[in-house]
Amino acid sequence: MSIYYVIDGKPAAEASLTIDAVDAGLLYGFSLFETILVKGGRPDFLQLHLQRMSGSAAELGLFIPEGIDSLAVMCEEAVSKSGISEGVLRLAVTAGSSDDKPGRTILAIRAGVPYHAGQYEKGFFIMTADYPRNEKSPLVRHKTANYLENLIARKKAGARGFDECLFLNTQGNAAECSASNVFVVIENKLITPPVEAGLLPGIVRGLVIDKLAGPACRCIEADFNYADLLQAEECFITNSLMGIMPVVSIDRHRVGDGRTGKLTGTLMQKYHSCL
Amino acid sequence: MSIYYVIDGKPAAEASLTIDAVDAGLLYGFSLFETILVKGGRPDFLQLHLQRMSGSAAELGLFIPEGIDSLAVMCEEAVSKSGISEGVLRLAVTAGSSDDKPGRTILAIRAGVPYHAGQYEKGFFIMTADYPRNEKSPLVRHKTANYLENLIARKKAGARGFDECLFLNTQGNAAECSASNVFVVIENKLITPPVEAGLLPGIVRGLVIDKLAGPACRCIEADFNYADLLQAEECFITNSLMGIMPVVSIDRHRVGDGRTGKLTGTLMQKYHSCL
Repeated sequence: MSIYYVIDGKPAAEASLTIDAVDAGLLYGFSLFETILVKGGRPDFLQLHLQRMSGSAAELGLFIPEGIDSLAVMCEEAVSKSGISEGVLRLAVTAGSSDDKPGRTILAIRAGVPYHAGQYEKGFFIMTADYPRNEKSPLVRHKTANYLENLIARKKAGARGFDECLFLNTQGNAAECSASNVFVVIENKLITPPVEAGLLPGIVRGLVIDKLAGPACRCIEADFNYADLLQAEECFITNSLMGIMPVVSIDRHRVGDGRTGKLTGTLMQKYHSCL
Repeated sequence: MSIYYVIDGKPAAEASLTIDAVDAGLLYGFSLFETILVKGGRPDFLQLHLQRMSGSAAELGLFIPEGIDSLAVMCEEAVSKSGISEGVLRLAVTAGSSDDKPGRTILAIRAGVPYHAGQYEKGFFIMTADYPRNEKSPLVRHKTANYLENLIARKKAGARGFDECLFLNTQGNAAECSASNVFVVIENKLITPPVEAGLLPGIVRGLVIDKLAGPACRCIEADFNYADLLQAEECFITNSLMGIMPVVSIDRHRVGDGRTGKLTGTLMQKYHSCL
């Protein structure tokens, strides 16, 4: 497998790194990460990814040794040097140790797109998790390495033949999926849960709200529960690696007529033609 | 500071280690750890710590390369070789990578007891967290590196002049503190939240329930809420580093007469004389 590593700004020959044994990234999962699509030899939506990381770092008190601007240059250069034109860049910054030793900055670029076209044609099958997302956790809006709930949910979904797992929050309202945001169309209204429902505000989520959903169909941020979900005329999930993914089945209940919804299809087209 | 490290069974000269860049411990906080009191040159309650780690490993699907028996020998030997007679041993096992590369086993032994006698005389001041513990999370009963909620709570408590932070769960019932379990005496009954309330079943918690609370005052595992807590005649918290800690104040409300409760004192004495 072709993976290109850069550790603290220096290309690394091996898939391993030296880390302080008391780095809080290792001890407590105190690190931030972004998974960034590499498209045409460039990191896609790089500024938006770094803005999110920067905001989380400030809020959680994580120090980014390079600063965000240098990090951007580092990502651009690493992708360029890797020679990988289509793939995924994973950027992580650990919190370091309490002895004022800064953390590590780890870039790993893997060749190959994280999807295949057939998935979009077939549509995505999702299940709901059997435990809630804690919408009041101070971590819920940040992409930290406290990520095991997502990993467990994703694995369970895969083992049961689903593509993704949706979390409801402690109030029973939809929050987010293990690695994507969720949208529904109910009574011709496009709705996605508000950040307060307990979710990581994804980049494609933001673009759908700000840009793609035009005047004809504004996107509303509002709570909806499981019963609403099962009545949705359309449903899709989004993330920055896979864009807009049409959901055709939720817990084995068919969504709409079991095919990509009309609005969903329009948004997918817009996403591909504009971005 | 005197710290003695052992990585994968071998004494390490430096406070750093080499780790696979895709070790799930680093990526997702998928590692298990135990903090073990070193007392008289030996790891205290070692078997109970390893049993808990072993159970969590089985449940979460984390592979412990050495096996639990070898891990016990490794801990005993490391403490012995370190020459540290009073201190703290931190044992961690990371999950490794999905390419079937096993994780790392990291032992760090730090000299010095993690408490001072004056704290017990003065009593412990606790606050309650402003966000709930998710008692339904599959992680809540395991000591994983998804530990950032605890770290944040502990820091906030320290910054406000408190010793510890107590979490209520999403139902409003007491769950656990950031690094300890909680007990109260209400109407002469000794009560601690059940595991289902959302807690890591601590070793001292187990000993209080099983052994220390005698026939005269059995310990009941039952839910109690914030109002109950403020009416408690006595309160104490427990962990394996600091034993039984009398709580004299909750959110600046005095507990009982503001001194170590009678039953609490008896249990503290028993703990010190029997264990």
